[in-house]
Amino acid sequence: MKRRSKAQSDRLVRPAQSEGQIIKKLQRFGSFGDPSRGLRLGIGDDAALFSPRSGFETILTCDWFLEDTHFLRGKHPADSIGWKCLARAVSDVAAMGGTPRCFLLSLAIPPALTGAWLDAFLVGLRRAQRRLGCFLAGGDTTRSNRVLIQVTVVGEVRSGAAVLRSGAKPDDLIYVSGRLGEAESGLRRLLAQKRIARSDPALRKHLYPEPRLRLGSWLAKNRFATAMMDLSDGLSTDLARLCTASNVGARIEASRLPLPSAGRAQRREVLNLALHGGDDYELLFTVSPASRRQIPKNFARVRLTQIGEITRQRTLQLIHAGGSARTLVEGGWDSFREGNI
Amino acid sequence: MKRRSKAQSDRLVRPAQSEGQIIKKLQRFGSFGDPSRGLRLGIGDDAALFSPRSGFETILTCDWFLEDTHFLRGKHPADSIGWKCLARAVSDVAAMGGTPRCFLLSLAIPPALTGAWLDAFLVGLRRAQRRLGCFLAGGDTTRSNRVLIQVTVVGEVRSGAAVLRSGAKPDDLIYVSGRLGEAESGLRRLLAQKRIARSDPALRKHLYPEPRLRLGSWLAKNRFATAMMDLSDGLSTDLARLCTASNVGARIEASRLPLPSAGRAQRREVLNLALHGGDDYELLFTVSPASRRQIPKNFARVRLTQIGEITRQRTLQLIHAGGSARTLVEGGWDSFREGNI
Repeated sequence: MKRRSKAQSDRLVRPAQSEGQIIKKLQRFGSFGDPSRGLRLGIGDDAALFSPRSGFETILTCDWFLEDTHFLRGKHPADSIGWKCLARAVSDVAAMGGTPRCFLLSLAIPPALTGAWLDAFLVGLRRAQRRLGCFLAGGDTTRSNRVLIQVTVVGEVRSGAAVLRSGAKPDDLIYVSGRLGEAESGLRRLLAQKRIARSDPALRKHLYPEPRLRLGSWLAKNRFATAMMDLSDGLSTDLARLCTASNVGARIEASRLPLPSAGRAQRREVLNLALHGGDDYELLFTVSPASRRQIPKNFARVRLTQIGEITRQRTLQLIHAGGSARTLVEGGWDSFREGNI
Repeated sequence: MKRRSKAQSDRLVRPAQSEGQIIKKLQRFGSFGDPSRGLRLGIGDDAALFSPRSGFETILTCDWFLEDTHFLRGKHPADSIGWKCLARAVSDVAAMGGTPRCFLLSLAIPPALTGAWLDAFLVGLRRAQRRLGCFLAGGDTTRSNRVLIQVTVVGEVRSGAAVLRSGAKPDDLIYVSGRLGEAESGLRRLLAQKRIARSDPALRKHLYPEPRLRLGSWLAKNRFATAMMDLSDGLSTDLARLCTASNVGARIEASRLPLPSAGRAQRREVLNLALHGGDDYELLFTVSPASRRQIPKNFARVRLTQIGEITRQRTLQLIHAGGSARTLVEGGWDSFREGNI
């Protein structure tokens, strides 16, 4: 974590006088230079030093989390932004079957937010780093007129054990963890300004997603999953990616999908949420028929549901309750995108 | 490298139709999944997999490079932005005495720039990755109304060999590589709209800085440097940081400073550039008196200059030619910051 952004920025704009404040607050995270976490050096030098464990590969992943693109400052509580910027990046480590180790935080914020907003952001980030076992190792801070967050997560997985998207074979069974479409449902309620309790499960899933680290790691360690990825952009889109990477197709049964709780919504609407809703950070994985019995109904209190099978034919089919089949179209993005804002 | 930003973005804004284009262009970098570079997996999965070498520590560093903060799109050629976003992050690896291995690119650009601008950006980035031996391993792309770049570099250094900022001792000699203030001088010419050849050394140093990888690595390997950092924010500021980290002070001789070529500038102005100008990405390092003879006048065609000594007294002193001493004030930031834009 540098104490100041690079010189060029200081030439071109007046630097944030409050940057020292930001750094001081980040220092209080207290995980820098903790050898027990493999971090020999963090804040205050040119770079962080991380000791990889022998016999492990390093997992590298990063995510943008930008104001007005990925969150709305007027709608999303600052502590949820802190939690979620780390959780969503860590979810990619879970999807490889790995364990997160540390992260770098690149943060650009308006000077006016270095007080209460930053404090609340850090409360959420601190909770996430403890819960996920992924500790701040360094980063870069500067100022900006909107909040810009970029998180890089470094994880590890035993050499050769990572589960890729490309390993699915025809006749493999397709599973998902948890419920699908719940986060999307929470987002809709948030945007609709409906009065909802913060304990509402759908809202909580949207604001404080839980990456499925234990499940991903268990599936990888036991080699039960032939392919795996996290569901960030919605089942229809992400399943298409997994199938493309594996050169296969899939057949999904609508009646098997673990739907979000309906409330007053129509079944058709709830099904659409489950098929196309994003931000769930559940795991999508495939299992060979021989390993089928190894997959329990619940793992670490998270439901595991077989929703269909991989097919040799490279199409995505959705089978409805009556037995009728239709092609599953990726995302339904257009209808989802328009209107929300 | 994900093929799309996370779902939330697709809910909140209409995604760039041109993002597929960006990814295709990045794929042509061709370094993904190259086992000879320790990259087993890059684009197209949830994360990249990197194989750390046994006996080495991993260096992690990241840098913002933002339009209007760190560069001006109307002034800085796109290929220089591509080169520099990687070079400046790699410079932190050089400053630890390490070797870069791979990088993650987080890129957010306006859809209108996905054509010629992006092509030129990638020309510079590709040149930098080859020259610096630091290859694209993954990243995240999204759209934004301004160009936002964040680069995370992963490097390596033999365990225990990293040179920190904190090792300087009283009586150690202070060295710098290259010339100081040259990049700042190039920036000034660029901003002043003066007609200058792109071959102008000061302009080239501003647009295409060369991190001192061979020098840093040689100093670390032979344990000649007791402390080291890169000069990104100007000597007066960066030397203060090194001294703070080492709990020491320093005495610098003005007459020894390797100044930029003067042109028609006053000597006083040139001295100020050398003391406070940023963006040089030269190395600042300290050497114990016993190792003094090991440091050549030039290393890999780069001049090495002893500019002063570390002192027990924790102040920064600048000694002028006549012998008069004054306190070296950090950065002269205010005078530098105002007026340029």
